[in-house]
Amino acid sequence: MERKTQIHAELGKQEIVITREFDLPLTLLFKAYEDPTILEQWMGTKVLKLENKKQGGYQFETTDPMGNKHPFSGAIHEFVVNEKITRTFEMEKTDFGAQLEFLDFESINDTTSKLTMHVIYRSVEIRDAILKLPFAQGINMAHNKLQEVALKLK
Amino acid sequence: MERKTQIHAELGKQEIVITREFDLPLTLLFKAYEDPTILEQWMGTKVLKLENKKQGGYQFETTDPMGNKHPFSGAIHEFVVNEKITRTFEMEKTDFGAQLEFLDFESINDTTSKLTMHVIYRSVEIRDAILKLPFAQGINMAHNKLQEVALKLK
Repeated sequence: MERKTQIHAELGKQEIVITREFDLPLTLLFKAYEDPTILEQWMGTKVLKLENKKQGGYQFETTDPMGNKHPFSGAIHEFVVNEKITRTFEMEKTDFGAQLEFLDFESINDTTSKLTMHVIYRSVEIRDAILKLPFAQGINMAHNKLQEVALKLK
Repeated sequence: MERKTQIHAELGKQEIVITREFDLPLTLLFKAYEDPTILEQWMGTKVLKLENKKQGGYQFETTDPMGNKHPFSGAIHEFVVNEKITRTFEMEKTDFGAQLEFLDFESINDTTSKLTMHVIYRSVEIRDAILKLPFAQGINMAHNKLQEVALKLK
């Protein structure tokens, strides 16, 4: 069965919930979010800064096919290994502003794990505008790549 | 005219908007949020940490009349002097979790300024539970004290 990232967005709410099961043990799934080298491979970004701790910060940058740089960054509110990351996130060159992200990691069994991302936006309008981006497809592809990259570390 | 802090909470939303006008120039209002010594006076808390910068953190602690300590803290997403602070906030000994706060500061005229706090919660249920605390009264008293303390700095 091919796994797929699900996005649940209720009409008129300023939040979304993203879920994905991976054919990965929990520790490998978490490592894909914790280790800058692995992150760079599946997200296709540069990791300029990644402080994995409460009140740390991170700074990523992607470059599009035209060579334009797209920085995004945030502050880390909470960081608990193999359990959760709570952080802010902002695409810096846009007007969307900061959003709050709760990433929860859980083990299903020795070879399967689940990520739940609960994202809260400043407004319903901002959420809806972000959902119009090629968002669902992008995150599913990124998660496919995550699994592929992380499986090689086994 | 006595000034009062207004809380706007729309039914079924996971956000609130808090507004308050102060008989203070913008610079003094902002200083009351930036300077740990002034903060301690009007909030009645200890400031254990306050890093006023993008991706900084803060740690405050209040002590109630019974001597119990109540820590609260967060990560700073953005900090622009005399303009805005975007941060997370959490009361650590509770189950409310992190919330996202947008504080906007604006000048009305040389002697009057306005604070707008837009607070986003993880759920409607958490927001409604927090609104049942003696919240409105508490923040109005704190803001009265802020004005009193800051006016002495003039």
